[in-house]
Amino acid sequence: MPKIPPKLRDVYVVGIGMTPFARHEGKTVVDLGSWAIRDALADAGLPFEAVEAAWCGHVGQGSTAGQKVVGAVGQSGIPVMNVENACASGTTAFRGAYMQVASGLADVALAVGFERMGRGALPMPKTPGEKSETPPPKQEPSKKPPPPFPSLFAGLFREHSRRYGTTVEQMAKVGVKNHHHGALNPRAQYRDEVTIQQVLESREIADPLTLLMCCPTGSGSAAALLCSEDVARQAEGEAIQILASTLVSEAANTAGDALHGVVEINARAAGMAYDLAGVKPEDIEVCELHDCFAIAEIVHYENLGFCERGEGGRFIDEGMSAIGGQVTVNPSGGLLAKGHPLGATGVAQVFEIVTQLRGGAGERQVRGAQIGLTHCQGFGGATGVHIFSR
Amino acid sequence: MPKIPPKLRDVYVVGIGMTPFARHEGKTVVDLGSWAIRDALADAGLPFEAVEAAWCGHVGQGSTAGQKVVGAVGQSGIPVMNVENACASGTTAFRGAYMQVASGLADVALAVGFERMGRGALPMPKTPGEKSETPPPKQEPSKKPPPPFPSLFAGLFREHSRRYGTTVEQMAKVGVKNHHHGALNPRAQYRDEVTIQQVLESREIADPLTLLMCCPTGSGSAAALLCSEDVARQAEGEAIQILASTLVSEAANTAGDALHGVVEINARAAGMAYDLAGVKPEDIEVCELHDCFAIAEIVHYENLGFCERGEGGRFIDEGMSAIGGQVTVNPSGGLLAKGHPLGATGVAQVFEIVTQLRGGAGERQVRGAQIGLTHCQGFGGATGVHIFSR
Repeated sequence: MPKIPPKLRDVYVVGIGMTPFARHEGKTVVDLGSWAIRDALADAGLPFEAVEAAWCGHVGQGSTAGQKVVGAVGQSGIPVMNVENACASGTTAFRGAYMQVASGLADVALAVGFERMGRGALPMPKTPGEKSETPPPKQEPSKKPPPPFPSLFAGLFREHSRRYGTTVEQMAKVGVKNHHHGALNPRAQYRDEVTIQQVLESREIADPLTLLMCCPTGSGSAAALLCSEDVARQAEGEAIQILASTLVSEAANTAGDALHGVVEINARAAGMAYDLAGVKPEDIEVCELHDCFAIAEIVHYENLGFCERGEGGRFIDEGMSAIGGQVTVNPSGGLLAKGHPLGATGVAQVFEIVTQLRGGAGERQVRGAQIGLTHCQGFGGATGVHIFSR
Repeated sequence: MPKIPPKLRDVYVVGIGMTPFARHEGKTVVDLGSWAIRDALADAGLPFEAVEAAWCGHVGQGSTAGQKVVGAVGQSGIPVMNVENACASGTTAFRGAYMQVASGLADVALAVGFERMGRGALPMPKTPGEKSETPPPKQEPSKKPPPPFPSLFAGLFREHSRRYGTTVEQMAKVGVKNHHHGALNPRAQYRDEVTIQQVLESREIADPLTLLMCCPTGSGSAAALLCSEDVARQAEGEAIQILASTLVSEAANTAGDALHGVVEINARAAGMAYDLAGVKPEDIEVCELHDCFAIAEIVHYENLGFCERGEGGRFIDEGMSAIGGQVTVNPSGGLLAKGHPLGATGVAQVFEIVTQLRGGAGERQVRGAQIGLTHCQGFGGATGVHIFSR
């Protein structure tokens, strides 16, 4: 059984960089990834030569894409690890860099996530030679089947609604909030305010999920420089401490049980992180969580302990997750509005939380925020939760 | 700049498992990977529940293939990291598991490498949207161009021959030796003895490289369980200590300089490993190195310090790398005869060295071997060197 890891060296984020999330036609992952790395180095005031190891999160951009991206900034012979965990690839890279510094194997480690994506819905990932583990959704014979991930989350909504009375309007409110936040974020892919009516009336993707309840595809990159206390003290960039780092996989086969698959792994990762950090859910003032679909955000309010099980719908209704609420959730716009270039997302969440804890988030600043949390789930794969403190 | 990492906790390999390398038609990577893991657990005498983290090396088998492979053996919620570094993906997974135990983040970690491959030569890896960095080889207009990797290593041979007088016959002798070793290894993909004449007269792949100087494609998996000293003392499997673990990337852009790209990164990784382990090249009695092509083995004799620069050809001529020679190189048959299912290779090298140091290699045993080394290079990516002691 996984144990709570021992407390090792304190680790800090001392530099962050991020491209806008956008279509980025004509740009390669090397263009995007090296852009984010250069910005992170400049933010930290560190030369590339200070970096002792690089962890690169992406999904199928090439087995040595990390070497190409990092190598475009500098080639100093450092270990470069390409890591994949579906939508949690970026948080996995961040976790790797954390381990490298926490263990003393490096004083400065780079985490970078990047992705170039085409348009259209994602296919369900498969292992070659295997049948898909997800049964095809029920459909009217005359209709094109809805894409697999939206279908899965439509099923999650139906189950959450059946058990707790969660409504389509509550999902729409998540879309409104995150698009409002995205409108305040110059790096967000979508920067238009939307109304509840617009969310409800946008194109149906998988009944009852509409377009504005689903995250878009896009391209982009984010990078973070992690370092020891000694380096943090000397670097230019304001250092934000990582109080907890967790990464877990599923503890049971959850195929065919939509709700369980979006609850257990996430609640467990969060519980471990709170224990490690010595903080409680009510201490979190700002949070970036994995809102791949609006219903996911509602369930994650509960998973992260911001409210009781079944109270996620009420939480959005009462404005508890808006800027100025109990805990500001996805001030960046989240996956719904900021966008979701798969491998970039986990590190982009860190970019937002570090920006917030430094007080540099401008119009979307959560005033006086001291403690923040990132949560990222790669479906069928991994969940990573990290807690930060200024 | 990368520093020599600090000495952390001692780490041991306490269980190993490996499928035969073969075509394995009809088997999935889940079949193959879970087979190797189960064998490693049985060898160690440990239940799956003892495993606290899993590192999975593969090349494009799916972003969460590791979760499917590990999950087929057990689902206990442990962190699962999918890592990629081209042909060094397996050694990267092993390095990750080493870090996890060495740092105290886990007492038992699993490294598993697996791959399902089709037939035919590998394409040169590309990052989407980028042009290939390798210029196309010169060709006669009437001829189909040779595949990219054999061409690259044909160029390496020509340069080594020009500088040091290395001959095609010396390459053929590497093929003869490794196929002889493979004939003694029940898990090898090719188990036929071959003569120098047969190697020279086999089909031309990229002049002057012939088929029997090139590693085949195939499928398979290997797994290793790494643990702390406390666990090693109690486990059933005989523990072999990891004296050194290194993973490095290229320190300069070596495109267009075939010899430099197969020298510098490897010599540097080996030098770091010798320093960490406190042993010298002449202490190594058994070695598994990355003989993707026969000329690579010759150059790696030099890179690993078994002989002086330029003396690799003489080294094979004088039988120094055969069983009973100065250092037995690739007793498993190496990539040339045992096979090379990409992600599996780095861990399969560990399988062989641990088997040898335990004295369990049967007909191919290197008598009384106490210290062994693995070397694995993912082209354009990473080199990992590990040193082991019984």
